[in-house]
Amino acid sequence: MKRTKVKALLQTPASGQEVLVKGWVRTKRGNKYVTFIAVNDGSTIHNMQVVADMNVFTEEALKEVTTGASVSVVGTLVESQGKGQTVEVQAKTIEVLGTADPEVYPLQKKGHSLEFLREIAHLRPRTNTFGAVLRIRHAMAFAVHQYFNQKGFFYIHTPIITASDAEGAGEMFRVTTLDPVNPPRTEAGEVDFSEDFFGKSTNLTVSGQLEGEVTAMALSEIYTFGPTFRAENSNTSRHLAEFWMIEPEMAFYELEDNMELAEDFLKYLVRYALDNCQDDLQFLNDLYDKELLSRLHFVVENDFQRLTYTEAVEILKTAKQKFEYKVDWGTDLQSEHERYLVEKHFKKPVILTNYPKDIKSFYMKLNDDGKTVRAMDVLFPGIGEIIGGSQREESYEKLVTRMQEMGVPEKEMWWFLDTRRFGTVPHSGFGLGFERLLLFVTGMGNIRDVIPFPRFPKSAEF
Amino acid sequence: MKRTKVKALLQTPASGQEVLVKGWVRTKRGNKYVTFIAVNDGSTIHNMQVVADMNVFTEEALKEVTTGASVSVVGTLVESQGKGQTVEVQAKTIEVLGTADPEVYPLQKKGHSLEFLREIAHLRPRTNTFGAVLRIRHAMAFAVHQYFNQKGFFYIHTPIITASDAEGAGEMFRVTTLDPVNPPRTEAGEVDFSEDFFGKSTNLTVSGQLEGEVTAMALSEIYTFGPTFRAENSNTSRHLAEFWMIEPEMAFYELEDNMELAEDFLKYLVRYALDNCQDDLQFLNDLYDKELLSRLHFVVENDFQRLTYTEAVEILKTAKQKFEYKVDWGTDLQSEHERYLVEKHFKKPVILTNYPKDIKSFYMKLNDDGKTVRAMDVLFPGIGEIIGGSQREESYEKLVTRMQEMGVPEKEMWWFLDTRRFGTVPHSGFGLGFERLLLFVTGMGNIRDVIPFPRFPKSAEF
Repeated sequence: MKRTKVKALLQTPASGQEVLVKGWVRTKRGNKYVTFIAVNDGSTIHNMQVVADMNVFTEEALKEVTTGASVSVVGTLVESQGKGQTVEVQAKTIEVLGTADPEVYPLQKKGHSLEFLREIAHLRPRTNTFGAVLRIRHAMAFAVHQYFNQKGFFYIHTPIITASDAEGAGEMFRVTTLDPVNPPRTEAGEVDFSEDFFGKSTNLTVSGQLEGEVTAMALSEIYTFGPTFRAENSNTSRHLAEFWMIEPEMAFYELEDNMELAEDFLKYLVRYALDNCQDDLQFLNDLYDKELLSRLHFVVENDFQRLTYTEAVEILKTAKQKFEYKVDWGTDLQSEHERYLVEKHFKKPVILTNYPKDIKSFYMKLNDDGKTVRAMDVLFPGIGEIIGGSQREESYEKLVTRMQEMGVPEKEMWWFLDTRRFGTVPHSGFGLGFERLLLFVTGMGNIRDVIPFPRFPKSAEF
Repeated sequence: MKRTKVKALLQTPASGQEVLVKGWVRTKRGNKYVTFIAVNDGSTIHNMQVVADMNVFTEEALKEVTTGASVSVVGTLVESQGKGQTVEVQAKTIEVLGTADPEVYPLQKKGHSLEFLREIAHLRPRTNTFGAVLRIRHAMAFAVHQYFNQKGFFYIHTPIITASDAEGAGEMFRVTTLDPVNPPRTEAGEVDFSEDFFGKSTNLTVSGQLEGEVTAMALSEIYTFGPTFRAENSNTSRHLAEFWMIEPEMAFYELEDNMELAEDFLKYLVRYALDNCQDDLQFLNDLYDKELLSRLHFVVENDFQRLTYTEAVEILKTAKQKFEYKVDWGTDLQSEHERYLVEKHFKKPVILTNYPKDIKSFYMKLNDDGKTVRAMDVLFPGIGEIIGGSQREESYEKLVTRMQEMGVPEKEMWWFLDTRRFGTVPHSGFGLGFERLLLFVTGMGNIRDVIPFPRFPKSAEF
């Protein structure tokens, strides 16, 4: 007989048909007449209730049916007598495939702290919480691809190992095959990277944007979705050393087109979650964050408020609220400022535009005022910045000037500059941190809990 | 007016409506009465023919309309008088957005060698060949996600930076933030990796399989699709230092289920290409490989031949063909042997199973004969091995024995072994090298030409 997954069985009308269920035991309870075994197979947050008639099964036969054990159950699918499920499986045979010794199996029935579960990240997908998070993560990744595919964007795999640094600043991981103990040396005593695998010093990428721009200058609309890295010694609930980014780049888009796309994209993703992950979202809403579902609906149903950085600074300066950091034109906004705008002042998502050039990257298009650039940040409730983007500087001369002002090495960037020498066009793009999105959609509080195997300072286990 | 992409315009019935086309000039030709400008925007391999009536436009006005320049054209969509296209745009205005000086722009009309184009990987997406390859690459990536999503598999992002090595052998890149010139040292003079970012020595992953298995033990069916790395000094047309892998892992799958999935998956992908990438495939078929389309159809229409390694060795030993490498039971098959089986003997894709344990990895399930393991390799015409996989050893004791025999450190793998201690189940999985797939689907001969920015020894440009 072919196994049917629990998700499908729970949607099947019960008519006493024979079924095969395979999965892991969550709980076992009952009395001397009947035993109820909750079996989960990860296809859904709901368990299949397996009912064992103790006239048919002995205590001894079910001894190894303990939390965490894997079982294969043949039985008949019948309407459930109990609450909490519509159908259940009346067991004919129950085979234990793999035991889980209750003395040592770490995931017993009782709740576990998220901190403890991080220590056993290899087992936490077996919990309701992480099952839900991983299914939502899958759904959001698929929605990203579906959204762009429908719109005629092409998915581009930008390189992970790179000799360039898009941000011009981020701390990077070095990638090397040189002997760490006795690396080859130049006559001056420096490490001789010409002997390294790639013939020069290389790093893990901090962004696929530059390669994305280059490709958009041929294919019009592209997106990246890949891992990016920051070697920052930040032990916070908002930072990972390894995380996934989505970076669309579009030829012929000006800043307004960029904002339209960003808003439409985010609403599509949140709507997709609401439509496809109801059970998991309901669980997270009930257990962790009673406002989660209403916050998700709120984003889908409201237009994002658009205003300039300069306007935002005016609002913040006259706000009644006390801020820890002072707001002045020319300084970067802090999280407390962003959240005030979103949560208190406008009470909806906000897109801020036209930031001072000195606090933004060299590749952003300079406005005619000579002081601001056509940047945009999308700010979300509870999260702050969820998207950062801009119209890109398409003028070769202006771009070179900005690079010189900001100390970006022109020589290494010859290929990037070529896009402005040959058939340059107005273009725009943005970056969405995938885990930031997941924090918003799942309501989880710590970014280490929305990625399967988090990487952070002093931790690369599993 | 809103821009319409060329792909959509070519499918639009022409009724003299006004349209806006944006893209890059591929060619310009004509006479004193009329100028024909071929505009490509990357949405399709086909160009939009823009027709400029030289009673309306002056030579001077079109002077900067040269190959590689970007243009914005307003005109009316009319039925084409000429051959090669159904519709064309009768230009009203032609604006040059960005010039491309014919004296220096490298991509002039004439054909370029693939070797030359590799040197300008940032511009090659503007050619017909690489436009086609990148669109097919996108389509195949999307098809991977769509296939697994439909089947209820969950996409898992396994870690890129890792302290473990699934293959137990592959050459790896080290990831570090230690000072390369004067790294911290232990008293014994060794580099002190406890001072490194992650508190130990870390590498770029060679496979997501082990983390994938762990997750399948909770979610039943998962897949990975991410970058993997090999620091092998191989300067061949088949090796990259950085490439993308797809690795499904399925709980409750035995070897036969694994074969079913692999065959169904590959056929789905090839059929998806045939259905969705006709124009690009036709182009590659005509220009590079006249057998491409028939080879793709052949894979979709034929059952894969399944046999054991032992049976294959018998066939090869009695083959009339002279091989460079001798075949003996216990040795790994060479590419020439694999291709003989596929191309000469069976004349269809082949799945070989039950290889000698000594030439396969420690995690493969041992057969009752004690000599072979439940491995499977899928062999394709022109490519050789396109998929490698196996049923995994689910017995804790047998797995530990194999690890000891093969010198795999148990201590570092505690988390992997936990899956066999707690609720272990029969399970299987396989790996598909994404670029191997693309070599097959595009018919390109060099793996550096099916990834946007290839990484290989002494080359990490762009």
